[in-house]
Amino acid sequence: MTQPPPRPVRTVSVVGIGSGDPDQITLQAIDTLRRSDVVFVPEKGAGKAELAQVRQAICARFAGDRPLRTVAYAVPARRDTGDYGSAVADWHTGLAATFTRLLREELGDGERGAFLVWGDPAFYDSTIRVLNRVEAAGEIALAFDVVPGIGSVQALAAKHRIPLAEIGGSILITTGRRLAAGAADVAGTAGAETVVVMLDRGDGLRAVDPDHEVFWGACLGTADERLVAGRVGDVIDTIARERQACRDAHGWVMDVFVLKKPRTP
Amino acid sequence: MTQPPPRPVRTVSVVGIGSGDPDQITLQAIDTLRRSDVVFVPEKGAGKAELAQVRQAICARFAGDRPLRTVAYAVPARRDTGDYGSAVADWHTGLAATFTRLLREELGDGERGAFLVWGDPAFYDSTIRVLNRVEAAGEIALAFDVVPGIGSVQALAAKHRIPLAEIGGSILITTGRRLAAGAADVAGTAGAETVVVMLDRGDGLRAVDPDHEVFWGACLGTADERLVAGRVGDVIDTIARERQACRDAHGWVMDVFVLKKPRTP
Repeated sequence: MTQPPPRPVRTVSVVGIGSGDPDQITLQAIDTLRRSDVVFVPEKGAGKAELAQVRQAICARFAGDRPLRTVAYAVPARRDTGDYGSAVADWHTGLAATFTRLLREELGDGERGAFLVWGDPAFYDSTIRVLNRVEAAGEIALAFDVVPGIGSVQALAAKHRIPLAEIGGSILITTGRRLAAGAADVAGTAGAETVVVMLDRGDGLRAVDPDHEVFWGACLGTADERLVAGRVGDVIDTIARERQACRDAHGWVMDVFVLKKPRTP
Repeated sequence: MTQPPPRPVRTVSVVGIGSGDPDQITLQAIDTLRRSDVVFVPEKGAGKAELAQVRQAICARFAGDRPLRTVAYAVPARRDTGDYGSAVADWHTGLAATFTRLLREELGDGERGAFLVWGDPAFYDSTIRVLNRVEAAGEIALAFDVVPGIGSVQALAAKHRIPLAEIGGSILITTGRRLAAGAADVAGTAGAETVVVMLDRGDGLRAVDPDHEVFWGACLGTADERLVAGRVGDVIDTIARERQACRDAHGWVMDVFVLKKPRTP
């Protein structure tokens, strides 16, 4: 009996490149990109133009002799109706088919690919999950690794110079969607002294007890960066204005903010 | 009336240098260290020897022409009796006095200092909080900034190739102390699909519903790195063994792990 010929293994890295400031990239991410032959970048979605710029900046700054090929891929649209979880699951199914095709057709034998991701791939990004699906489906032999990056929450905390954790306390990281749907005293409800809100579309903060302290930021690490801190009730309108200003200047905006429980007087 | 002469401003950065793997440092951190004249390193505590090694490695790899002076400082012991919060607060008071002395005596006019911190300074590290105290006390004029770093949770998630956030879900980051004191169904209690546990002394996992899925790691990014994943009830003894092996090889160990709710069958 003869063995079937071994299938070529597709080798790919998911590379976090930080949250806007190109200097927040790690040496590991730079090294991974230098060893890559192909970079996969999404054709649609918020931050697409900046992602292309960062990639070009990285190549210009660190490129070795190896050429780095860029392959743009179309991101399927996500259904905006019905249950959120199943809409995302369907979207992932579409992405998994796209990734499978990319890895099969765009990576030659012995070549390495890289998916560039804003922030840290472990926080609210789909790339790892979709690659896990591709691997589990078994249609192609896949070897992938993950390079962590500085997330927007970390960039925000650094700019505001605040610790995220209170002494011995807990931190809840959640989405604007969950915040808007949830209780006003978010921190108390979760038993967490600090609440971090990501992916807010601008309405999450309206649901919060106005006595919370908020540390807000948008367009972090870019020339359009905006930072606001204070009691929610006092700064919520300022944040709305700054948010709009950032959107006008930058073309898109994704909020991130930190909430701390009202200090007991 | 004459104005008092302006006080010299002490300029210092809090620099996250990643969680063990020296390649997980960012360009921003390297650049900050290159522009620094003095690096402050703690004389005691877990990881002191490695911190010194990383600092040396950074200097050897990236040092410009400017010499980088190292100033070691004694870390006051933390009271191990009584209320945890007030013990930490007293400890911070002692550290603030130490930092004030360091900044006053060890930084010359126009010089820049840097505090090196494992992981990200915003997660369970005291340096930012203590510098906020020093600034508020107003005894010295202080200008400080923060450089975020890759935290151990991020390194862990990358090694296990898992997303921390479930789709649209929340993440609770807490301590082993809180976990051991809290409910068995940690994720359910907090309304979070994912629970990240830091600073565990090895007993937190015993308090967890054994049907949770755990992704555990220790000595991340070092030659002694250990990774274990599985159902808590199935792998808890393996984790205890690997933890001891890591401690034996490395001299100290600090756990970090991620818990996911039991999957509904």
